Amino acid sequence: MLLKDKIPMGYVLGKVKYELLVVVLYASVVALLFRTFNVTDITIPIAVPTIMGTIISLLLAFRSNQAYDRWWEARQIWGAIVNDSRTLARQLLSFTSGVEYQDEEVIHFRNSFVKRQIGWNFCLGQSLRKENAMQGMERYLSKREYLQLMHYDNKPSALLDMHGRDITYALQKGWVNEYQQVELDRTLTRLCDHMGKCERIKNTVFPVTYSLYLHFSIIFFIGLLPFAVIDFFGWAEVPLVAAIAASFLLVEKMAIQLQDPFENKPTDTPMTTIARTIEKNLRQMLNDHTQLPEQEIAPVTQFYVL
Amino acid sequence: MLLKDKIPMGYVLGKVKYELLVVVLYASVVALLFRTFNVTDITIPIAVPTIMGTIISLLLAFRSNQAYDRWWEARQIWGAIVNDSRTLARQLLSFTSGVEYQDEEVIHFRNSFVKRQIGWNFCLGQSLRKENAMQGMERYLSKREYLQLMHYDNKPSALLDMHGRDITYALQKGWVNEYQQVELDRTLTRLCDHMGKCERIKNTVFPVTYSLYLHFSIIFFIGLLPFAVIDFFGWAEVPLVAAIAASFLLVEKMAIQLQDPFENKPTDTPMTTIARTIEKNLRQMLNDHTQLPEQEIAPVTQFYVL
Amino acid sequence: MLLKDKIPMGYVLGKVKYELLVVVLYASVVALLFRTFNVTDITIPIAVPTIMGTIISLLLAFRSNQAYDRWWEARQIWGAIVNDSRTLARQLLSFTSGVEYQDEEVIHFRNSFVKRQIGWNFCLGQSLRKENAMQGMERYLSKREYLQLMHYDNKPSALLDMHGRDITYALQKGWVNEYQQVELDRTLTRLCDHMGKCERIKNTVFPVTYSLYLHFSIIFFIGLLPFAVIDFFGWAEVPLVAAIAASFLLVEKMAIQLQDPFENKPTDTPMTTIARTIEKNLRQMLNDHTQLPEQEIAPVTQFYVL
Amino acid sequence: MLLKDKIPMGYVLGKVKYELLVVVLYASVVALLFRTFNVTDITIPIAVPTIMGTIISLLLAFRSNQAYDRWWEARQIWGAIVNDSRTLARQLLSFTSGVEYQDEEVIHFRNSFVKRQIGWNFCLGQSLRKENAMQGMERYLSKREYLQLMHYDNKPSALLDMHGRDITYALQKGWVNEYQQVELDRTLTRLCDHMGKCERIKNTVFPVTYSLYLHFSIIFFIGLLPFAVIDFFGWAEVPLVAAIAASFLLVEKMAIQLQDPFENKPTDTPMTTIARTIEKNLRQMLNDHTQLPEQEIAPVTQFYVL
Amino acid sequence: MLLKDKIPMGYVLGKVKYELLVVVLYASVVALLFRTFNVTDITIPIAVPTIMGTIISLLLAFRSNQAYDRWWEARQIWGAIVNDSRTLARQLLSFTSGVEYQDEEVIHFRNSFVKRQIGWNFCLGQSLRKENAMQGMERYLSKREYLQLMHYDNKPSALLDMHGRDITYALQKGWVNEYQQVELDRTLTRLCDHMGKCERIKNTVFPVTYSLYLHFSIIFFIGLLPFAVIDFFGWAEVPLVAAIAASFLLVEKMAIQLQDPFENKPTDTPMTTIARTIEKNLRQMLNDHTQLPEQEIAPVTQFYVL
Repeated sequence: MLLKDKIPMGYVLGKVKYELLVVVLYASVVALLFRTFNVTDITIPIAVPTIMGTIISLLLAFRSNQAYDRWWEARQIWGAIVNDSRTLARQLLSFTSGVEYQDEEVIHFRNSFVKRQIGWNFCLGQSLRKENAMQGMERYLSKREYLQLMHYDNKPSALLDMHGRDITYALQKGWVNEYQQVELDRTLTRLCDHMGKCERIKNTVFPVTYSLYLHFSIIFFIGLLPFAVIDFFGWAEVPLVAAIAASFLLVEKMAIQLQDPFENKPTDTPMTTIARTIEKNLRQMLNDHTQLPEQEIAPVTQFYVL
Repeated sequence: MLLKDKIPMGYVLGKVKYELLVVVLYASVVALLFRTFNVTDITIPIAVPTIMGTIISLLLAFRSNQAYDRWWEARQIWGAIVNDSRTLARQLLSFTSGVEYQDEEVIHFRNSFVKRQIGWNFCLGQSLRKENAMQGMERYLSKREYLQLMHYDNKPSALLDMHGRDITYALQKGWVNEYQQVELDRTLTRLCDHMGKCERIKNTVFPVTYSLYLHFSIIFFIGLLPFAVIDFFGWAEVPLVAAIAASFLLVEKMAIQLQDPFENKPTDTPMTTIARTIEKNLRQMLNDHTQLPEQEIAPVTQFYVL
Repeated sequence: MLLKDKIPMGYVLGKVKYELLVVVLYASVVALLFRTFNVTDITIPIAVPTIMGTIISLLLAFRSNQAYDRWWEARQIWGAIVNDSRTLARQLLSFTSGVEYQDEEVIHFRNSFVKRQIGWNFCLGQSLRKENAMQGMERYLSKREYLQLMHYDNKPSALLDMHGRDITYALQKGWVNEYQQVELDRTLTRLCDHMGKCERIKNTVFPVTYSLYLHFSIIFFIGLLPFAVIDFFGWAEVPLVAAIAASFLLVEKMAIQLQDPFENKPTDTPMTTIARTIEKNLRQMLNDHTQLPEQEIAPVTQFYVL
Repeated sequence: MLLKDKIPMGYVLGKVKYELLVVVLYASVVALLFRTFNVTDITIPIAVPTIMGTIISLLLAFRSNQAYDRWWEARQIWGAIVNDSRTLARQLLSFTSGVEYQDEEVIHFRNSFVKRQIGWNFCLGQSLRKENAMQGMERYLSKREYLQLMHYDNKPSALLDMHGRDITYALQKGWVNEYQQVELDRTLTRLCDHMGKCERIKNTVFPVTYSLYLHFSIIFFIGLLPFAVIDFFGWAEVPLVAAIAASFLLVEKMAIQLQDPFENKPTDTPMTTIARTIEKNLRQMLNDHTQLPEQEIAPVTQFYVL
Repeated sequence: MLLKDKIPMGYVLGKVKYELLVVVLYASVVALLFRTFNVTDITIPIAVPTIMGTIISLLLAFRSNQAYDRWWEARQIWGAIVNDSRTLARQLLSFTSGVEYQDEEVIHFRNSFVKRQIGWNFCLGQSLRKENAMQGMERYLSKREYLQLMHYDNKPSALLDMHGRDITYALQKGWVNEYQQVELDRTLTRLCDHMGKCERIKNTVFPVTYSLYLHFSIIFFIGLLPFAVIDFFGWAEVPLVAAIAASFLLVEKMAIQLQDPFENKPTDTPMTTIARTIEKNLRQMLNDHTQLPEQEIAPVTQFYVL
């Protein structure tokens, strides 16, 4: 998952480097006008940017909060997906461990069920990122299931339906009792809830008017700032304005990145990494120590997140 | 659902264009008095609007927060409706998949049950928008159910009662066992909860005194602003005042729109779109690939939301 | 429930009219001293009320938040009471719809159970408002139950006990199975939780020191304000001080009203209206279209809430 | 429970009277130096305390929030204890009301079970306050249980274990069915959760560095304040500084009191009062109208809380 | 657990002593330049640090909030682990207390099950701290289980699987009935959830950009501060700047410590202490009063937390 390493200063500023360049140029022009060409009646009282700064800070704080909440909720949902995937496997394996004759059929049933659950995680991640949800599914599904899945729009939902039918089959075979069947179904219901929550976050945009207004306010504020401080700072105004502008722009940028945790960006929820962790855990529960292909591990660039 | 596209600047400002026009006129009159007619003793210290601006920002932040929470809760409820509709269908289909003789009656039962659930979503959305809740219900209900439904005030609630009676019927027929019957009833209970939560948000107004007071404060603040900055800015005061006024008015407008997520406005919760997504998912689960009428898709104007 | 209508400006200010009158008198005296009697060395720097205003705003924001949360929680609880009343009725009616011989006894049982639930809502509302909890109960209870209820301190709790015993009776009679009996009991548990939560909000006062301190701070702030602005505004100071004072006092008043949602005031949670909505819904589920007495509808004055 | 009465001004200020005395002396010395001895170059710009005041307000708001949340959570937990105690009694009484022969043994079993639950509440309250948890337990337990309880460190936990064993006993006797037994056990689980949550709040201190830093900042701020306002206010500075200092100190004091809701102070969660309410309710459910000793009612001093 | 004692002032400041030293030196150099070498045109208006201070306070408040929430969530999870460990033991002991013949096998089964649960807590704590998760496990597991555990990556998860298989074994033996088996499994599911939540907090870093930006802003702010106050305070500026700098740095430090509650630091969640509390409680429930080795008690240095 995410590593917390030394992050170079350059990386952080890199995110707003074009905006910052414009700000520096703009501030320099103001300083040039004022100091070199003596256009001195353009100063404004510092109280104006003060009041604007306070208001923008409050709105930015509100926005950071909501964006952070979306990001954290996305992370919580995927945490819950880990838990319920493990729970589903534990329940299935322990409930059917009591079957007297451990014949081939039960073992095959357990294998294919747990593998389907492993596949579900990858499938959900890919479908949230609007990638091909079927990619790699052949490793986790039987030929027949794979073909069946192709007919559905909502692939992860269809996989849960297959789970549901399999559990009823296990009830009919007597591998689980009536009570256990309902309990397994409840775990499916929770997985269905997690899936729906991810879709909700994915499909609901943060109120656009708000973001836009905030963006214009910040630009307006930065535009006024040089005129308020030029009188006292002279050329020293350029780094000052750049520093204050950088801070507002960085916080805004962070909010934009946090608020859409399922876009296909290097900074989103590490769904592939999480799905792989689940795969490792579930395979060990099945005692299937197949070596996993390493190339699927999230690449190094993902470490510089947020 | 909602698309995040480039939104023209004009659209955003369009929401407050009449208010803004008044502000510009007002500020111009002040500037005219001051600069042209030399009425110069009307300036006030900038500290007065500074303190008012801070206080209004805090109250606006509180209000945006509550309005956002209402909007987000509405969105969460409809997300949960999606999940529990899928869960209800999955449970019914998988629980009854174990019935030995898949005779006509079971298949008909499943079809009419799932269709009623599809209808429930549309019915709830229409009843929350105070539209005719029966509209289009003939497509999802049998003739007999349709007539029965007309006698009830609370249509969505009546549909859940029909669900409940059907599940008991399935228990008597032996299509589901006792545990499964109660489990299905629990999903109905959750759907009933979601419905009640929507009604609560719909029927509870945001404290009116608060909104009103905030509105008057903003007007008062904008009224004072020109007198505080006219001295420094001269005619440049007009765009400055307009910009600050626009920002406060836009944030207020956003809060007003977010706080009533079930009014029949282009910006509310996209209930019809969500209901249609559920319809598509549930019909695929039934393997009923009827082509849906496209004209019901939410119109393009709905994309510029919030 | 609550209607959002045009609320006259006078109504809003009416809530603080006495306080406002005192403020206007006080500010006028200060202006009189300063302008007419030339007592000019009483001015203070505007920074003092600025800092106090900011601090008070922050504390007021904190308080509004907690008060709003209490009010909203109360509203949520009553929303949940609506849901669980409907759920209880739906469960009872659908669970017992399977009884082969729909003899008189079952029908009578269902009637008296659902009516008792209707009565419970009114009883809870009246007991929270410290009114006579027994009022009107004779319409919903049998003579025997009514007399029995009189021996209990906590009437709503006693009604839930009667529910509980009735459900066990239904189990013994075979009208519901073991699994359904426990499921009905769970709905009772949730109703018991809602009742307890209402009592908690009713019985726990908002920290009094905090409210009091905040009140004194606002008075102190208003007391200082005229001296800070008299120099710039002269007689125009009176409306300015009145406007700022009105805003602080109104927000405080709103918090006071929101924080006690079960006091017998026109602005509290509309418990009677909600209980009547439940009555209508439940009677329709029983197919009992008795015309309800209209005089119990919440009066018009209740519309100007908050 | 807590009453909201007229609280004398003196009571509120009494909490910070020593601190306030020091502040008044200190401010007087500054005024004396400045006015009488003309040490006039000690003034500082008012902007310094302004900025400090804003920052401290923000941190104080954060702290009040967390402290309030702890206090409110404690109150919610005890509200839930009320609910689940009633639920446990209702379930036990209604589940066993179906036993055909209401012989002596069942009645005795019910009595001792419900009494033990009454005792549990007092025991938990006393153990949270680090008082003798066994005090008064002889009234609610049999001799044998009382002796057994003495061997356990965690008394309330041991009482729940006794509950658990009794419920299994009832299952063996056939007084409750298998399903009801599990349902009763779930109520025990919830009670166990409430107990653990109380212990968590009791045992986790609010981050000490934060409190301490905030305290020093307030002292530092008050120390600077006189120098910033002496120039404008002269001797009038003393009440001004005292008023501002009082407000900060009072809010801080409130946070300190709220953050530890289970210390044995007159202002903590009214656990004894709540436990007595439960006792009254549960005894009425058992139809045991024993007059309770009045001296255990929370004393009058408890009314001036917070 | 954590003790709230008198904490020496030195301890608190010790956390930022190097940073503070640099600040003092820096401020002294500025004072030296200004007062001794009369470099007087380096002053800047105090409004600049005022606006920066306000903005930084808001961002710091947001950050403190999120960091506190992570810390408090971690604490809540471990509180829930305490509760569910007790619940698991209570359920197992009371459910099997009904077995007629209390033969050796049942007693041995209960012992090994409860001991494994004790071990699970230590194992989870050690694995979260990236210590050797197997350390000390030999005291809680049989030889066979210990060897088996070594093959798994996720040790705590593997222990829950063993629990699951044991419960199914108990069902087959008839020691628990079907309902009780599923109820025990549900407690396992909750423990699995708690484990997953801990991993989520451990593996998800707080958005790094945000922390970094905030850190640079504070440095920049402190760098500007002396120039803004040197004019009024002269040499007195040094303690003033040091005090303000200390407050910002301390709050930031606190947030850094709170946000990672599972790093192996003296200030993290007291997992070992909690695990030992659970051990004591569970052993008493088993009536196993083995004296625990005292050296494992959390050392005294842990008391000065946060």
